[in-house]
Amino acid sequence: MPAQLLSQPNPPPDASQLPGVLGVLKIMLDLNVLSSDELKDIQDFRRAANFIAAAMIFLKDNVLVERNITHNDIKNRLLGHWGTCPGLTLIYAHLNRLILKNDLEALLIVGPGHGAPGILSCLWLEDSLSAFIPQYSRDKVGLTRLISGFSTPGGFPSHINAETPGSIHEGGELGYALSVAFGAVMDNPNLIVACVVGDGEAETGPTATAWHGYKYIDPAESGAVIPIVHVNGFKISERTIYGTMDDLEICSLFSGYGYQVRFVEDLNNIDQDMAASLDWAFSEIKKIQSAARTGQPVLKARWPVLILRTPKGWTGPKSIHGEYIEGSFHSHQVPLPKAKVDADELNALQAWLDSYNISELIDIPTGTPFKNILRFVPSTPEKRLGQSNKANGDYNTLITPDWEPLAAEKGTQESCMKSIGKFLLEVIKGNPNTFRIFSPDELVSNKLDAVFNETGRNFQWDSAARAQGGRVIEILSEHTCQGMMQGYTLTGRTALFPSYEAFLGIVHTMMVQYSKFVKIASPGFCLSSPTSTHLYPQAHETKWRKDIGSLNYVETSTWARQEHNGFSHQNPSFIGAVLNLKPALARVYLPPDSNCFLSTIAHCLRAKNYINLMVGSKQPTPVWLSPKEANAHCIAGASIWKFASTDEGINPDVVLVGIGVELTFEVIAAAALLRKEVPALRVRVVNVTDLMILGPEKSHPHALMDSDFVSIFTKDRVVQFNYHGYPNELRGLLFGRPRTDRMHISGYNEEGTTTTPFIMMLSNGVSRFDVAAAAVRGGALVNEKVAVDAHIKIGVFMHRAQKAKDYAFEHGQGWFFLLIFVLPRT
Amino acid sequence: MPAQLLSQPNPPPDASQLPGVLGVLKIMLDLNVLSSDELKDIQDFRRAANFIAAAMIFLKDNVLVERNITHNDIKNRLLGHWGTCPGLTLIYAHLNRLILKNDLEALLIVGPGHGAPGILSCLWLEDSLSAFIPQYSRDKVGLTRLISGFSTPGGFPSHINAETPGSIHEGGELGYALSVAFGAVMDNPNLIVACVVGDGEAETGPTATAWHGYKYIDPAESGAVIPIVHVNGFKISERTIYGTMDDLEICSLFSGYGYQVRFVEDLNNIDQDMAASLDWAFSEIKKIQSAARTGQPVLKARWPVLILRTPKGWTGPKSIHGEYIEGSFHSHQVPLPKAKVDADELNALQAWLDSYNISELIDIPTGTPFKNILRFVPSTPEKRLGQSNKANGDYNTLITPDWEPLAAEKGTQESCMKSIGKFLLEVIKGNPNTFRIFSPDELVSNKLDAVFNETGRNFQWDSAARAQGGRVIEILSEHTCQGMMQGYTLTGRTALFPSYEAFLGIVHTMMVQYSKFVKIASPGFCLSSPTSTHLYPQAHETKWRKDIGSLNYVETSTWARQEHNGFSHQNPSFIGAVLNLKPALARVYLPPDSNCFLSTIAHCLRAKNYINLMVGSKQPTPVWLSPKEANAHCIAGASIWKFASTDEGINPDVVLVGIGVELTFEVIAAAALLRKEVPALRVRVVNVTDLMILGPEKSHPHALMDSDFVSIFTKDRVVQFNYHGYPNELRGLLFGRPRTDRMHISGYNEEGTTTTPFIMMLSNGVSRFDVAAAAVRGGALVNEKVAVDAHIKIGVFMHRAQKAKDYAFEHGQGWFFLLIFVLPRT
Repeated sequence: MPAQLLSQPNPPPDASQLPGVLGVLKIMLDLNVLSSDELKDIQDFRRAANFIAAAMIFLKDNVLVERNITHNDIKNRLLGHWGTCPGLTLIYAHLNRLILKNDLEALLIVGPGHGAPGILSCLWLEDSLSAFIPQYSRDKVGLTRLISGFSTPGGFPSHINAETPGSIHEGGELGYALSVAFGAVMDNPNLIVACVVGDGEAETGPTATAWHGYKYIDPAESGAVIPIVHVNGFKISERTIYGTMDDLEICSLFSGYGYQVRFVEDLNNIDQDMAASLDWAFSEIKKIQSAARTGQPVLKARWPVLILRTPKGWTGPKSIHGEYIEGSFHSHQVPLPKAKVDADELNALQAWLDSYNISELIDIPTGTPFKNILRFVPSTPEKRLGQSNKANGDYNTLITPDWEPLAAEKGTQESCMKSIGKFLLEVIKGNPNTFRIFSPDELVSNKLDAVFNETGRNFQWDSAARAQGGRVIEILSEHTCQGMMQGYTLTGRTALFPSYEAFLGIVHTMMVQYSKFVKIASPGFCLSSPTSTHLYPQAHETKWRKDIGSLNYVETSTWARQEHNGFSHQNPSFIGAVLNLKPALARVYLPPDSNCFLSTIAHCLRAKNYINLMVGSKQPTPVWLSPKEANAHCIAGASIWKFASTDEGINPDVVLVGIGVELTFEVIAAAALLRKEVPALRVRVVNVTDLMILGPEKSHPHALMDSDFVSIFTKDRVVQFNYHGYPNELRGLLFGRPRTDRMHISGYNEEGTTTTPFIMMLSNGVSRFDVAAAAVRGGALVNEKVAVDAHIKIGVFMHRAQKAKDYAFEHGQGWFFLLIFVLPRT
Repeated sequence: MPAQLLSQPNPPPDASQLPGVLGVLKIMLDLNVLSSDELKDIQDFRRAANFIAAAMIFLKDNVLVERNITHNDIKNRLLGHWGTCPGLTLIYAHLNRLILKNDLEALLIVGPGHGAPGILSCLWLEDSLSAFIPQYSRDKVGLTRLISGFSTPGGFPSHINAETPGSIHEGGELGYALSVAFGAVMDNPNLIVACVVGDGEAETGPTATAWHGYKYIDPAESGAVIPIVHVNGFKISERTIYGTMDDLEICSLFSGYGYQVRFVEDLNNIDQDMAASLDWAFSEIKKIQSAARTGQPVLKARWPVLILRTPKGWTGPKSIHGEYIEGSFHSHQVPLPKAKVDADELNALQAWLDSYNISELIDIPTGTPFKNILRFVPSTPEKRLGQSNKANGDYNTLITPDWEPLAAEKGTQESCMKSIGKFLLEVIKGNPNTFRIFSPDELVSNKLDAVFNETGRNFQWDSAARAQGGRVIEILSEHTCQGMMQGYTLTGRTALFPSYEAFLGIVHTMMVQYSKFVKIASPGFCLSSPTSTHLYPQAHETKWRKDIGSLNYVETSTWARQEHNGFSHQNPSFIGAVLNLKPALARVYLPPDSNCFLSTIAHCLRAKNYINLMVGSKQPTPVWLSPKEANAHCIAGASIWKFASTDEGINPDVVLVGIGVELTFEVIAAAALLRKEVPALRVRVVNVTDLMILGPEKSHPHALMDSDFVSIFTKDRVVQFNYHGYPNELRGLLFGRPRTDRMHISGYNEEGTTTTPFIMMLSNGVSRFDVAAAAVRGGALVNEKVAVDAHIKIGVFMHRAQKAKDYAFEHGQGWFFLLIFVLPRT
């Protein structure tokens, strides 16, 4: 009886009777897959793991309960989340069996990252902790350290993080485990990633759409995820949505998402249930993969999902002070919160810990687990969940092609995105299995579609397209793209995330969470950060984590050219998100033309461990620099642009700085205007392509020394910055540089609608006229010839600005950007 | 035959045969609800609307095609999204019928906001444009302006926004229409909100979980949403997920979410289909509502959802240059993009527009619609979708209780959250139907649970709790909470969104989008912003939009006291998000104690049109100020705290500034240390509670004049800021203030893990020892007595910092914050 049709009183049909049709079927299985020995041993493993997890939350001493527990044995502060732990140890124990039986390569991604005790206890039992952090040896000393140190300074933190061997996901900000799991299996055809999704996390939007992730997994080229929804029914104080859904609702929902649904919920026989369910899930996966790998892919393959229903805090205390604990929200965190001071709670803790009979499982004198409980721990270390090479760094160096052959000729016009589209095409050719593009907006819309000359969109559900593989994932969910990119990158590959500028902020906090993971994973790297001071809180070295690729974001369709889509499409705030990261990790580039963009993206794709943000235009814009000049400019991060300056920028009255494609264009146009209208004014034009050079000395590895800063920006002249982003963040960067009182910053000022590109410039005060007026104002302070009629010139520029706007309003359209085309004067 | 069970070959059972069970049923209906006259009239309305929508995208002249179209008649730039328009006009036409038939109060929320032409054409036809923007009269002049002005400066923008009468949602950043709709119907028992969700938007996470929104709607107290998923199958260049899902998948999915599913897809009979479907949906809603309102609520009520399947760009050109347009992604935006220059495309446009036979629908000489097509337009203006009072401002003034009776006694300790919990309890009592709390984290966890003395969690799906009403929505989806709050607020009520600090950034971009809507809705308000310069791009006055409540965020469980949950729970970036908004809208408060928090929240809940962010602690912390002092301090925004300063802060050597609860505590502790250790140093302690006072003169309505700034911060003394947020954003704010070179800013520096509260302070360089050392360094510049052994004192402080950390690491725990308790010296 393989499946049961819900809502039907009569015997259900076999699933195979519904060919090509997705039914609402509850999968039924025989539950006799474990021998009685196996059953005992797997139960013993779980029992030991549950004991250790519970002890970690409570005990600072007497960790194996060799004598009765006293209040003194209890930690001063009780921290940890017990509720989810017994479910995690159940899953862990059975994954070991699945791995061993099938010689699998596997990872476990844990959405409820606060269930760290449940995972750490299993890692200790399989001896994966000491493999990387020697003090956690699989003996009494190591176990004592693990238990008494947990959630205290110097011990493991309360949540899974990069210090946890085998983890590639923290699970602190809920919602992303599933998409990370999908990213990890891509191009890893033999990898199985089990992914635990808590029923709290299941309420989040990012998870709710990540269920569609399988529609982007080609079983011929990628591995598979076994999603396990852990429905224990409660959050901190309230029931969960999934906890109130009945079988039929859950079965319908997941059938609609495209899954086959198996409930794991036989509490009297949970190990047989879980073993049979994982066997079933794996066999379904193998069927789908085999079909695809023999050229007979299943259309709309129905992958397995497990719904695990166990009581919250299972095996914990049933009740205390007349309140239920097990099976209720009271077991979410610390079930006996007053154990340190309350005698009843202490007694309940003693009874609880005794109930595991730990002396049957661990040799108390030595602290070594008895052999039988390790029966299913894979003997090959790297097959253990904590020691997989996939999790701990297995970086595939990206082969980056030479970009100079793709460069545009100086003096022409070219779209940055079209240029890098051609470059990405070459990257894909050179790295057919280790590079992907995750794109919430369509590549066509961002003018990156050159890649489709070599590859396709990997959308399996489109039966018309019959996608077979393909490097491009297009799903209108920034969260899914980000999660997939994280999973793909943390397992050693390289990815790119192009986006409309305004909508990249949707993953702001995900990116920050990821950066925290990377910071912990590369402590030496971050400790060497120039802003580091002292007293880092991190407990463990993680040198065993190897390098990974960078997260690479390309922002395009920026506010400066979203005049057609209007105000909602105008938001450059992601720059600020990156600026707030640890400086050692963060890079922000605003290449001024397509050659600089090529140079930048080639650099970023090669670079390791960073978060790279590149901002540019998809419209054709002037190519200011030759490939060689572009390279030099990008290495410097900022240069004086002699061709646009008065006397090549020597001895200026005023410095005009462009940052960003369109904003730089306006600066160059302003300089041209000034040459004509105010010839006495000596203008220096500077472009900044690497934003990080601007911050104070030592604030960032790229930050210029003050002496270099002064040689570009002078020591006392007015500097007018025409900046693509929000002015406040640039002000923050410049704070601390010499004489900031002479610096004026214009940028995106939250003004916009559907209008013309030039009105976007005008209404944010960053047009050539605004820049020219500011230049005159600044130059007049030091140049008498300019000062004499400065107010008239400023009036003229402001009048022209008004005229430009009036023209657009009167004629229902505007000048379409250029007005003056300023060719490089080389 | 009311319903069809999918996946069964035999005649399906009646739905009523499955009592209490949710089946996968496809709702079947009789399709003869419109008389032939009605059918013709509703089709004519749609035909006219489609013509106008198409004309808006293309024509600058000859807008009623009174002569053959020439290239000159075509706009210079073609902007607009045709693909979704015919679906929107279909929905609009039939909603009118539903309103008229049932005398409904209704709103329409349009997820695909780029379908503005489809909505604006209907608004013009029903004469809702001229009601607010007189130039769009329902005559030839008005129609010409509408068509030729669309997507040009001075005309309507390409997306629905606050200039669009009847709208409360822009739909630019996709994902939020549905949650906004749920928020709008709450406590509006007679309101029906039809909500169009495009199949692109349906891919987003926020939408994917918003389907659960009905589980939080009590039909006794709230109205209902009619969700309409518009599956036209394509995005810009790719199929959508929903477009590739078959009936069974979609039916299963929505049944799982808890809905009854009706497909509207009979293209040969679409008007009968839509009319019958809306009648059915409304009757199902009435059944559920009646049951609940007569005390017999349906358990797990199954609300209706409509799946509208029509071809993309329906009624548009079938093909051009051998490529399909209608029914393909080519019709997503402008179907004939070269109509201005290509003769074939021009001819195709002529044929397309002619196909509507506009002269049958509108009297060409006058531009007036013929009466028959307006048959279903409600005669009462405010019943029209464009003129509902609910959309255009219907603000219910919140009655705010006096907070002073709830104040804590100065010198005691109190949790800010516990205090405001009591206040919110009173707010709920005083405003039983116009105030709600939307909470992604549980109120218990944020210590706001005092409100449960008066009200409950409104979670209908919890059959055990049998929730009946309740002011609190707890769903672990920040996106859903934010969307619901927006819908609730924009329809005239007041809401509060408490959150863990780290996770509020999840709705960063949603909040920015909302602020853009409010900016456009309150142009005078924003124009008066002190940073305003010139040349605003907005086309239309929107004075007809009335005041609304503020969006009110309370951030708690901040990084400073998330030492137990660790690094992933430490992220104060939402402050920066608010700082980048239009200054006239943005308010950021960091009240230093519970009395100040009470004063602040009372102010914020009363204030209108703002985005208010309040940041505070849930732990008990010292109460520094009496209620009267707290009020004065909050009005000032910043004060010298004489009780903590040397000689009441007169003539200081150095100024120490605390911003935020814990950071201020460390400043006060530092001042106490200094009094003892460096008695010669004259310290002034300042607290800033209103961040906006710091920005340069006129940068914000609250910004201090430079003279006032100097009187608090001195003109030349070193100022050490101990700031709760990221230092860069504070640097940006202070930039431009006198002599910033003497200002030093410490703040959250991305250092953290599971540790002690004091190590959090130490590792971010904001502990009392850091502040004291900085004070000595600064004071030594002006005070010889301090200078003489400054380096020794600094060494002592740094040594103590190291000792504090060593202690925590050695003992597996730390000082739990206070160390020195500094009572106000009054």
